[in-house]
Amino acid sequence: MALIVGMLSVVRPLLCTWAGLPDAAFWWKERATCCKVRARRFGSQRQLVVVEPSSTAGVAVLKLKNLPVNSFSLEFLTELIINLEKLENDKTFRGIIITSDCPKAFSAGVDLREICGKNPAHYTEYWKVLQDLWLRLYLSNLVLISAINGPCAAGGCLIPLTSDYRILADNPKCLIGLNETRLGISAPFWFKDPLVNIIGHRASEHALQLGLLFPPAEALQVGIVDKVVPKDQVQSTALSVMTQWLAIPDHARQLTKNMIRKPTADLLVKHRDTDIQNFVSFISRDSIQKSLQMYLAKLKQNKD
Amino acid sequence: MALIVGMLSVVRPLLCTWAGLPDAAFWWKERATCCKVRARRFGSQRQLVVVEPSSTAGVAVLKLKNLPVNSFSLEFLTELIINLEKLENDKTFRGIIITSDCPKAFSAGVDLREICGKNPAHYTEYWKVLQDLWLRLYLSNLVLISAINGPCAAGGCLIPLTSDYRILADNPKCLIGLNETRLGISAPFWFKDPLVNIIGHRASEHALQLGLLFPPAEALQVGIVDKVVPKDQVQSTALSVMTQWLAIPDHARQLTKNMIRKPTADLLVKHRDTDIQNFVSFISRDSIQKSLQMYLAKLKQNKD
Amino acid sequence: MALIVGMLSVVRPLLCTWAGLPDAAFWWKERATCCKVRARRFGSQRQLVVVEPSSTAGVAVLKLKNLPVNSFSLEFLTELIINLEKLENDKTFRGIIITSDCPKAFSAGVDLREICGKNPAHYTEYWKVLQDLWLRLYLSNLVLISAINGPCAAGGCLIPLTSDYRILADNPKCLIGLNETRLGISAPFWFKDPLVNIIGHRASEHALQLGLLFPPAEALQVGIVDKVVPKDQVQSTALSVMTQWLAIPDHARQLTKNMIRKPTADLLVKHRDTDIQNFVSFISRDSIQKSLQMYLAKLKQNKD
Repeated sequence: MALIVGMLSVVRPLLCTWAGLPDAAFWWKERATCCKVRARRFGSQRQLVVVEPSSTAGVAVLKLKNLPVNSFSLEFLTELIINLEKLENDKTFRGIIITSDCPKAFSAGVDLREICGKNPAHYTEYWKVLQDLWLRLYLSNLVLISAINGPCAAGGCLIPLTSDYRILADNPKCLIGLNETRLGISAPFWFKDPLVNIIGHRASEHALQLGLLFPPAEALQVGIVDKVVPKDQVQSTALSVMTQWLAIPDHARQLTKNMIRKPTADLLVKHRDTDIQNFVSFISRDSIQKSLQMYLAKLKQNKD
Repeated sequence: MALIVGMLSVVRPLLCTWAGLPDAAFWWKERATCCKVRARRFGSQRQLVVVEPSSTAGVAVLKLKNLPVNSFSLEFLTELIINLEKLENDKTFRGIIITSDCPKAFSAGVDLREICGKNPAHYTEYWKVLQDLWLRLYLSNLVLISAINGPCAAGGCLIPLTSDYRILADNPKCLIGLNETRLGISAPFWFKDPLVNIIGHRASEHALQLGLLFPPAEALQVGIVDKVVPKDQVQSTALSVMTQWLAIPDHARQLTKNMIRKPTADLLVKHRDTDIQNFVSFISRDSIQKSLQMYLAKLKQNKD
Repeated sequence: MALIVGMLSVVRPLLCTWAGLPDAAFWWKERATCCKVRARRFGSQRQLVVVEPSSTAGVAVLKLKNLPVNSFSLEFLTELIINLEKLENDKTFRGIIITSDCPKAFSAGVDLREICGKNPAHYTEYWKVLQDLWLRLYLSNLVLISAINGPCAAGGCLIPLTSDYRILADNPKCLIGLNETRLGISAPFWFKDPLVNIIGHRASEHALQLGLLFPPAEALQVGIVDKVVPKDQVQSTALSVMTQWLAIPDHARQLTKNMIRKPTADLLVKHRDTDIQNFVSFISRDSIQKSLQMYLAKLKQNKD
């Protein structure tokens, strides 16, 4: 945590991208200042995460806007964590709807550029921030609803898997799943654990080994999402589900959520350092780096 | 345990309410004596728990009769435990059908009067007895079938959750579920654990956070009950299911039941004292006591 | 392990029954030699396990051929383990389809003659080999598909429960389940654990206590098998499913499989010796031995 907190205190001025919300506290002013700073430094106001109030009191909408596919760059992850931290500390809010503002995807997960051609210290920092996002989401005191309005593969499932409720757009392109094995890698255990909690052991074993990406109807059947609705109703359905959740007194709901989720979260907390070491040693291998470089070159070629 | 045993040895003469059953052992006579004692002391023979033989050999029917809604008063819990202990030790019996003899409910769970306006020693004793009932039921060597012929909310689910089989009356009033969060409190982990065992992790997380009460069809679908039948067939269905269970040699079935359930029961045994401390410290808070007093006053007002 | 390895090194020459496969490594030659040795010693070439290449590259078909019902004799278990070990070490193969070559059953499980009338040392060895088969299958790096073309009861479920995928013939005789309690015994915890992983806690508790044998449609519904097809399509379906599994890079799939299964396997590894002691002490009891002798005598009588 020390490392992350240290890092955050450095990047905070660069990353603050909070959108205006009424009724907000101290950090609203801080935001205005830091955005000016950012604008001064980068000559732009590109926000990777946009937070807006919803029509329902107490509910924020957090829009992922790291074009084109919400890949988890370190900058994006950090901005996401800062925004979640602020919402968590802001007594105005009781729930967050997380959705994508990129037309092409909900999230594509890990940004390969962060784990290719860098040094072990960078990989360590990156993986730690990813774990930190997981922990923040999985144990959040707020009600988190994923409004999944685009494809959501591999690491991109991090947010849905750690939410309280998942709504998927009914569109054949909106595939969801942990397809890591198809890419030649294995999902970390802290992706497996919430998946097992959500869809059960057998379905997880099957889905993870085969790297299954579920289209909406199958996603609903296996239980990796709770509801499938037409794409233009994802947002309104999220708000209506949120209303049901907010009918419950926060304190009792939070205690209950924590009681159920803490054993799973404790596994990550306990094995966090080993997991980082495993990841860094795996990703630093020459063979892996070469594959990643080739893959990235190919992706770039396809773009050009 | 020492505390409970101590307490039981005191209250036993007051609570013994065993109904006549054929083929019974020593304690049948003891019962006759103690009932006379009770009658002498209270001038009544009000029984909170009635045990009757069924038409099927080896099967007792245990009727909960703490009017109006089978709230878990300390007296009722103690009587229940004594009766279960006797049935457990009586070689005549291999299975128990537990049902309600109150028209209004299967069980409303914790009696608020036991946890309001009393002292920490009382709260400690109360919670310990509740845990003891759980342990006795969950690890019972007998086949336990819950014949749920009325609403069954919050703590009232203790008996169904620890039974081997659950049959619910098909009546819209017969809601079942752990709705603690709606009352501003959190179910203890030893209610969460058997719920997770029965309906799975995801469904439990959802049901517990939202404090869901399931009507019969939904209860069956989510799996919190095994069968839904018309109210007038609950009893006969329970007997017919019991017959299937009794076709299995006791010793093998008991070993198997214990193998599956012990890890869950061990969690309560291990964390029992901490759980009591948490409960007592929570319930002793001024704010909680005030809420309970107001709630009880309101209930009393509604009655008047 | 030492004991098993020691034993295997002794029985290997007796049991090697490997069928000819193209493209194979060192042990193909070894096989030729040892089969000659076997033939010399027994004057027969009876093979209890037949391994054949399939029409799909990288896929072996392992046929259980211990007539009449593939009971787990010590010889059969040992031969099975040797063949699995060879396939595991042979880089030619990535997956195995396990099926029965006995018309009457997929497998009837434990051979009662191995646990009746012998001495504790024999029971110890037998149980250890059974555990070893379980461990080898459950953590196999190969894709294992059970093509269940006959009844499969009690210990006979060991192979399906530890496979990656289970296909059952759609025939009313093809019952599958852990019916130990009906025989007056309890399945070991390392049968319970994978069952819970596959069909969940509640369904396992129900199935194990009642010793349920599921006909095909129910087996599919409860999830103890993944697919039910007409008997003459079991093999072709297995091959077609295998093709899907082999589309995944081995290394990633193996890491993933191990991540999910290791915690369950670790339980057996950790409690292995205690489990053996429990089994040996249970099976050595006079009462149990008498029951087994009577049961065996009855079986023999029915045959005559």
